[in-house]
Amino acid sequence: MMELEGKKVLTIIEDDFEDSELIYPHYRMQEAGADALIAGPVADKVYTGKNGVPVKSDAAFHEVEIKEFDAILVPGGWAPDKLRRYDAVLEMVKFMMNEQRVVGQICHAGWVLVSADVLNERTVTSTPGIKHDMINAGATWVDEPVTTDGNLISSRRPPDLPAYGRALVEAIR
Amino acid sequence: MMELEGKKVLTIIEDDFEDSELIYPHYRMQEAGADALIAGPVADKVYTGKNGVPVKSDAAFHEVEIKEFDAILVPGGWAPDKLRRYDAVLEMVKFMMNEQRVVGQICHAGWVLVSADVLNERTVTSTPGIKHDMINAGATWVDEPVTTDGNLISSRRPPDLPAYGRALVEAIR
Amino acid sequence: MMELEGKKVLTIIEDDFEDSELIYPHYRMQEAGADALIAGPVADKVYTGKNGVPVKSDAAFHEVEIKEFDAILVPGGWAPDKLRRYDAVLEMVKFMMNEQRVVGQICHAGWVLVSADVLNERTVTSTPGIKHDMINAGATWVDEPVTTDGNLISSRRPPDLPAYGRALVEAIR
Amino acid sequence: MMELEGKKVLTIIEDDFEDSELIYPHYRMQEAGADALIAGPVADKVYTGKNGVPVKSDAAFHEVEIKEFDAILVPGGWAPDKLRRYDAVLEMVKFMMNEQRVVGQICHAGWVLVSADVLNERTVTSTPGIKHDMINAGATWVDEPVTTDGNLISSRRPPDLPAYGRALVEAIR
Amino acid sequence: MMELEGKKVLTIIEDDFEDSELIYPHYRMQEAGADALIAGPVADKVYTGKNGVPVKSDAAFHEVEIKEFDAILVPGGWAPDKLRRYDAVLEMVKFMMNEQRVVGQICHAGWVLVSADVLNERTVTSTPGIKHDMINAGATWVDEPVTTDGNLISSRRPPDLPAYGRALVEAIR
Amino acid sequence: MMELEGKKVLTIIEDDFEDSELIYPHYRMQEAGADALIAGPVADKVYTGKNGVPVKSDAAFHEVEIKEFDAILVPGGWAPDKLRRYDAVLEMVKFMMNEQRVVGQICHAGWVLVSADVLNERTVTSTPGIKHDMINAGATWVDEPVTTDGNLISSRRPPDLPAYGRALVEAIR
Repeated sequence: MMELEGKKVLTIIEDDFEDSELIYPHYRMQEAGADALIAGPVADKVYTGKNGVPVKSDAAFHEVEIKEFDAILVPGGWAPDKLRRYDAVLEMVKFMMNEQRVVGQICHAGWVLVSADVLNERTVTSTPGIKHDMINAGATWVDEPVTTDGNLISSRRPPDLPAYGRALVEAIR
Repeated sequence: MMELEGKKVLTIIEDDFEDSELIYPHYRMQEAGADALIAGPVADKVYTGKNGVPVKSDAAFHEVEIKEFDAILVPGGWAPDKLRRYDAVLEMVKFMMNEQRVVGQICHAGWVLVSADVLNERTVTSTPGIKHDMINAGATWVDEPVTTDGNLISSRRPPDLPAYGRALVEAIR
Repeated sequence: MMELEGKKVLTIIEDDFEDSELIYPHYRMQEAGADALIAGPVADKVYTGKNGVPVKSDAAFHEVEIKEFDAILVPGGWAPDKLRRYDAVLEMVKFMMNEQRVVGQICHAGWVLVSADVLNERTVTSTPGIKHDMINAGATWVDEPVTTDGNLISSRRPPDLPAYGRALVEAIR
Repeated sequence: MMELEGKKVLTIIEDDFEDSELIYPHYRMQEAGADALIAGPVADKVYTGKNGVPVKSDAAFHEVEIKEFDAILVPGGWAPDKLRRYDAVLEMVKFMMNEQRVVGQICHAGWVLVSADVLNERTVTSTPGIKHDMINAGATWVDEPVTTDGNLISSRRPPDLPAYGRALVEAIR
Repeated sequence: MMELEGKKVLTIIEDDFEDSELIYPHYRMQEAGADALIAGPVADKVYTGKNGVPVKSDAAFHEVEIKEFDAILVPGGWAPDKLRRYDAVLEMVKFMMNEQRVVGQICHAGWVLVSADVLNERTVTSTPGIKHDMINAGATWVDEPVTTDGNLISSRRPPDLPAYGRALVEAIR
Repeated sequence: MMELEGKKVLTIIEDDFEDSELIYPHYRMQEAGADALIAGPVADKVYTGKNGVPVKSDAAFHEVEIKEFDAILVPGGWAPDKLRRYDAVLEMVKFMMNEQRVVGQICHAGWVLVSADVLNERTVTSTPGIKHDMINAGATWVDEPVTTDGNLISSRRPPDLPAYGRALVEAIR
């Protein structure tokens, strides 16, 4: 049996996501056997990454039954600046944090967690660019390829994707 | 005599600045008679706005004698995510804030002030997207076209540029 | 009271306008208190500048009551090559010239005035590229940042925008 | 023997040429046996068409011995707005017109002939956009796919290229 | 009378065609007097070349009465990778080859003939990149600007277009 | 111990690779513990994917000691059309096939194996677009997400990446 068989993982999307930070974890979850879904503001719409990769959403935020998911993944790039403005996104992230289910974030994804107000007294990493925003939100910031603080998995940037993928599989199974 | 004759104004630049948020205030300062300079990581280099407008830097950050300036302007777009990572930028902003000289910021520019740690107990506006980052940095956030809190002038987005220009001229003269 | 309060200013738009030559004067009019409107071939449509800046039209040419306006502004770039082909544009420009109301033109905008046949015995400047077209249309051509010949204000290129803005405010008020 | 064997034809180039208006006549001259050369401001430099086609120059304007050529071809697009600013270009066009050698122009190419001041009392066609510039330069303007007035061959736009090619071969041989 | 008067020539199109390899032969056929039509998957749709040139289709594949045509032309670029997947395209190419009517192919166009299975014991040229695909399909491959093997005319790349145009006119008339 | 610890995997690169088909397998190999290297025509050069993702090469083809590698991966997109023209690439692929070491190919990557002449009597899958090229090269073609024929692993397109990643890890360990 595959490591994540029977698990459901949600990736959230908006335009200008960092291409590989969305693609790699999403396919990796599928490779491990998970049922992986992509949700955006609108269903069945093609969103375009910061570098130009097109990715279609499977569902709209409001259609997602977040209770059914074992993990939520937030990509980096400029998408988090957009994602943090949706109440539906903030509520899904809060729910997953409250329920201690896996929340994965990489690069600039931390902005979404700042707006969801779930970083107080948590240990995280991120692109150094948003370090102060995360510290101001109550987090302890470390400079590591990947950091696991209970259900919260965070990573810095594309070259850390192998470590991030490993940590996600480990945390979700 | 023109309103800002004898005044010196510095605009800081990096790639992906919001085009009109850099262009409008910069030319407006010149129209009012100020000596307006653009400084970036490298001198005499063309930086490209988020929409594609090319703008050349006059000087490098390290060449700027910040003491000689009456105001510093920070554009929005994705440039602030880059600008906040330069110590030279943070020191210039801190100096201007400490000296109570005019600091102008618009849209996402607030990230630079967050990293310079100068927003505690100040009143500001910005794109709603970074509202939480500014509040977490100690600021009171208001949703207005332009807000003047002593030497600190802030604005929200391109359609607010007329109000922002007026407030800048008023504050600097 | 602001300098241009109660004044109405029309900017005309088509794709490939020189981005800053449209943005700066338009916002500048608003800063001075004018009611500034943008009209294009179609209303509420986003036109894209030569460098990529998107600007939405407020009205269609045929909806404009030109009699109500105190000034008309023509941007540069490649838009004038398109604008000069609309009878509605040529008629608005002729009306404003006949009525001695302010007509502002910058860079390649002069092509529109050539086609409106209103440059005979007028003094103008422009990008040097279209100098011969303006002279052949009967104008005296000068190489200056901004030239004011009665109601006709002309300018050369983006770095002249501060002088152009000043001359426009002066002429319209 | 091919129709244009022994003939030399010069095409002049700058960025933003209308792609097919440069490519088609240039290759057509070669197909007919002519020795066809492309000259730009700089030799061996790739210039990019308005739509994106890259074309490399064979020689710089100042290296061209215009006396050796039987014809000169000016492409359309925005390149003519640039080409008309080079004295070397204007002199080559004047020389060819004075010598009654073939001059081919299409679409916006007429601007170059306006600046070379060679259109007085000549019959031409062009894109309707620059019709007034050509009439003001002394020309009689007709709306036809191709017009041959002695050594001067003019055409309107890409769909007229077949007629233009035929007229050029006819005139040069 | 023009060389190809009364002849009908079909060019097939898909996105990412090599711009000049489609434009030149198509206009050349018209210059020689042929009735030249462009067919794509959909009628009256703008397809965009690899470099960016837009070309509109006149008809859809399924609307073409291939029996009425004297020649079919296949452009290069990445379009052949798409064109070879349409049964309607393969059938048109087979019909023309069986009927010994002219088939023109340039650069990567050979992939379409490979999939139509019509290259056995034929002599062809192409971009060297697909040389092995053509040899494996049964062809003898030569490295020449243009090769004429009965009704089958093939060419290598854009600089060979003059030779290709000449060979096509010769073969079709 | 990780599954691929001690293994060395080479990915070959050229411009216009299918972005996710290069990124996913490369990072996946690293996640499993392999030492993964990217080689292109030139070392330390940024190559750009078909959609725009930039990836830097670690080494040049001629610097690679292919004997040291346990697997070679060929991405899809238009890169294979370029990669198949390098003798160094064809020799590396032949060596790996002769030594029965793992060769991974996806989408259009098969063209490289066609030119290396290593598909005779092998079973493969690929994008349907190049099916005939592979069959003509002697292969049996199947339409499956991933096909493993001894040391040769092939896959069809991006949505098959999870299955491809799993098959690669399985084959290399």
